[in-house]
Amino acid sequence: VKTITKLKPQPKTWPPAVPLEVLRRMSLYLRGLNQMKARGVSRATSAALVAPLNISAAQLRKDLSYFGKFGKCGLGYSVDALSADLKKILGTNKAWNVAVVGAGALGSALLKYHGFAELNLRVCAAFDTAPEKTGRVINGIMVRSMSEFPEVAAQNGIHVAILAVSRESAEAAAAFLIQHGVKAILNLSSVHLTAPAGVCVSNMDMSCELETLICRLGFRS
Amino acid sequence: VKTITKLKPQPKTWPPAVPLEVLRRMSLYLRGLNQMKARGVSRATSAALVAPLNISAAQLRKDLSYFGKFGKCGLGYSVDALSADLKKILGTNKAWNVAVVGAGALGSALLKYHGFAELNLRVCAAFDTAPEKTGRVINGIMVRSMSEFPEVAAQNGIHVAILAVSRESAEAAAAFLIQHGVKAILNLSSVHLTAPAGVCVSNMDMSCELETLICRLGFRS
Repeated sequence: VKTITKLKPQPKTWPPAVPLEVLRRMSLYLRGLNQMKARGVSRATSAALVAPLNISAAQLRKDLSYFGKFGKCGLGYSVDALSADLKKILGTNKAWNVAVVGAGALGSALLKYHGFAELNLRVCAAFDTAPEKTGRVINGIMVRSMSEFPEVAAQNGIHVAILAVSRESAEAAAAFLIQHGVKAILNLSSVHLTAPAGVCVSNMDMSCELETLICRLGFRS
Repeated sequence: VKTITKLKPQPKTWPPAVPLEVLRRMSLYLRGLNQMKARGVSRATSAALVAPLNISAAQLRKDLSYFGKFGKCGLGYSVDALSADLKKILGTNKAWNVAVVGAGALGSALLKYHGFAELNLRVCAAFDTAPEKTGRVINGIMVRSMSEFPEVAAQNGIHVAILAVSRESAEAAAAFLIQHGVKAILNLSSVHLTAPAGVCVSNMDMSCELETLICRLGFRS
């Protein structure tokens, strides 16, 4: 796999002054547009875009206004044009190489998942520290030793990693990745990681999310 | 597995007027307290509790104030007492039975995961619609046909489900679960599900999260 996306210097405003929830919705709008495109729909109304998300059309317009002017009043949006714009905003108009770090049950499941490709994300390498896990090939991707990460990451321009290691290993693994050029980590381990300057971390914590759900159930006593 | 937690009538305020982020932090505070307990620490300062989360002690006090008065000024918190209180607030002072729905790669990985037990969550049943996936036993849990869900859920008092099905199946599966008594769904499929009244849904969408991370990288052109 060749280097796909070269890192550019960081923009002056870092992080950009757009709420995270707005960025998430940009991704969800784009997904909706892709589904419309697949159904042969060429123009999208605000109402059609917001319906699956259960938010108002005003919210959509407010979200988009962070990034410029889109669509025409009363005519809705061109599906092709808006999806191209959203890809550009999100940065997935270009391909990104992604590493999966940790090849246990969860990491292996991610290597088998085909959904990232449509986002222009190519899971191109996998790593683990356990010798019994390295050397295996999952869905065409060889699991390598963590010690190979620096070389493979440099060769493939890997700046994005999905961290699927145990709670005990998460902090050290993240530090190692960051030391070797990773700028964005999707952390799936149940440890809250905070990011040093210039690095983005998203903590997706199933345990925390489940416990929060139980709490919301409201059946406490 | 016997019925563990019986459903109580819904509280009058639904959902409770506590921001979701506060509930998530309650779960993270509890995790921190558990780690302190494991290290033999009996009293926790605000500073020690907030350090791993990179937030202020004032935020901790504000979060806790939603639920009552805790700790003594200048003395910090009793690790045992606060963790018992947090469990009660979160509702995980009692055990909950949980179903994993979808036994593909991701669902199977969840069945192998041991981390939920410490939250008093017992993954006690797994379901899939594909005949080739049913009948398998993963980590002691038999994968059953979805058609068995109503009976198994009723027998085991299952009101919480982790949805690990494909994007195409997610909406129908969620509707079926809700129809048969599920009140809380952790949705891991890359579809945004909205919940009917009285049901809680948490959408954990790796694709959306990854795309948001790429955007935050700020290297768009």
